[in-house]
Amino acid sequence: MPDIVPIPDIVVGRLPTYLRELQRMAQDGQGITSSQELGKRLGISAAQIRKDLSLFGEFGKQGTGYTISFLVDKLRQILKVNCVWDIALVGAGDVGHALANYQGFADRGFRIVMVFDNDPKKIGTQIGSFIVKPIDNLIEEIRKASIKVAMLAVPVNQAQKVADLLVEAGIKAILNYAPTSLNVPEGVHLQHTDPVTHLQRMTYYLK
Amino acid sequence: MPDIVPIPDIVVGRLPTYLRELQRMAQDGQGITSSQELGKRLGISAAQIRKDLSLFGEFGKQGTGYTISFLVDKLRQILKVNCVWDIALVGAGDVGHALANYQGFADRGFRIVMVFDNDPKKIGTQIGSFIVKPIDNLIEEIRKASIKVAMLAVPVNQAQKVADLLVEAGIKAILNYAPTSLNVPEGVHLQHTDPVTHLQRMTYYLK
Repeated sequence: MPDIVPIPDIVVGRLPTYLRELQRMAQDGQGITSSQELGKRLGISAAQIRKDLSLFGEFGKQGTGYTISFLVDKLRQILKVNCVWDIALVGAGDVGHALANYQGFADRGFRIVMVFDNDPKKIGTQIGSFIVKPIDNLIEEIRKASIKVAMLAVPVNQAQKVADLLVEAGIKAILNYAPTSLNVPEGVHLQHTDPVTHLQRMTYYLK
Repeated sequence: MPDIVPIPDIVVGRLPTYLRELQRMAQDGQGITSSQELGKRLGISAAQIRKDLSLFGEFGKQGTGYTISFLVDKLRQILKVNCVWDIALVGAGDVGHALANYQGFADRGFRIVMVFDNDPKKIGTQIGSFIVKPIDNLIEEIRKASIKVAMLAVPVNQAQKVADLLVEAGIKAILNYAPTSLNVPEGVHLQHTDPVTHLQRMTYYLK
């Protein structure tokens, strides 16, 4: 379907969770699913899922449900993860180590290709399968490799400074792990990840 | 306002990001904000924010905006983070280290109080300000301390087994860092955190 009216960002935000769950079903050998089943697994109404997907086309048939492999392919196209995006990771501390060793990137559209830090004790050491590079080379290396996506795992008091460097290097999407807000120019996408927002979403329901 | 009709979970899911941004504004010394300003900082429409908040009561005045400290208090009450929830962390690997040292819990309703692992090399070692406890004691220790919230940072192939232990121990909210789905019984809340879903939400917009 032509993409004339912009899709609401809130819908875009749900698609990756649909894709993750569908990829898990496929890994478990399942071939077909329904909006009811997907909704139950995700805690979202079946109607919401059908409405979201209908914005992008006709992906299922009334009564027969969705072919998982077909829907996975379509969602990967829509989210532009039918290719692999190279990621620059900045920060070789605890979070950086966790990300460099994270087993959840495979087959989902991303791979870390370089890791930077400003700490002379960390530069040159190995983290995951990467040798930590000096942050002084960040702009040059990211530009040379045409990397567009970065993960920011530096202390709060350095986050804005490093974000500015990433923007200067041509990065267009930043996933921020530092518990602070950041300013980025128009056209650069920013997401924050933070355990507390997930936890608060659950405590709402606790007695 | 009385909470007669259940609030949609999608709205509940937005409240923590409102609270985080408002707490940041307060930290920066700001006293008043508007749905326009908050929306701009979060990439959400002002109308959506007003609609979400109106489900819980009258928090702002037409033309004068929101008093940040008042709205922060209200959101903390709604999300039940006007107290502090003790957290049991399971897994003393990279992610566990990152969480044990995370600076973003303070004043947001959570504190880690114990860390477990099953690796004899990790048990008894220090991570953050905690001595890692053996997972064999998990049920007993969590029950004794009446802990209701857990973070799960173990390898994929152990995640379900540990989730079952947590449920048996009386945990009611689990934040899962393992890139796998989990089954938990009705009444136990589960959230997954995963860098890829955040990244995919941004690549959608990249050319």
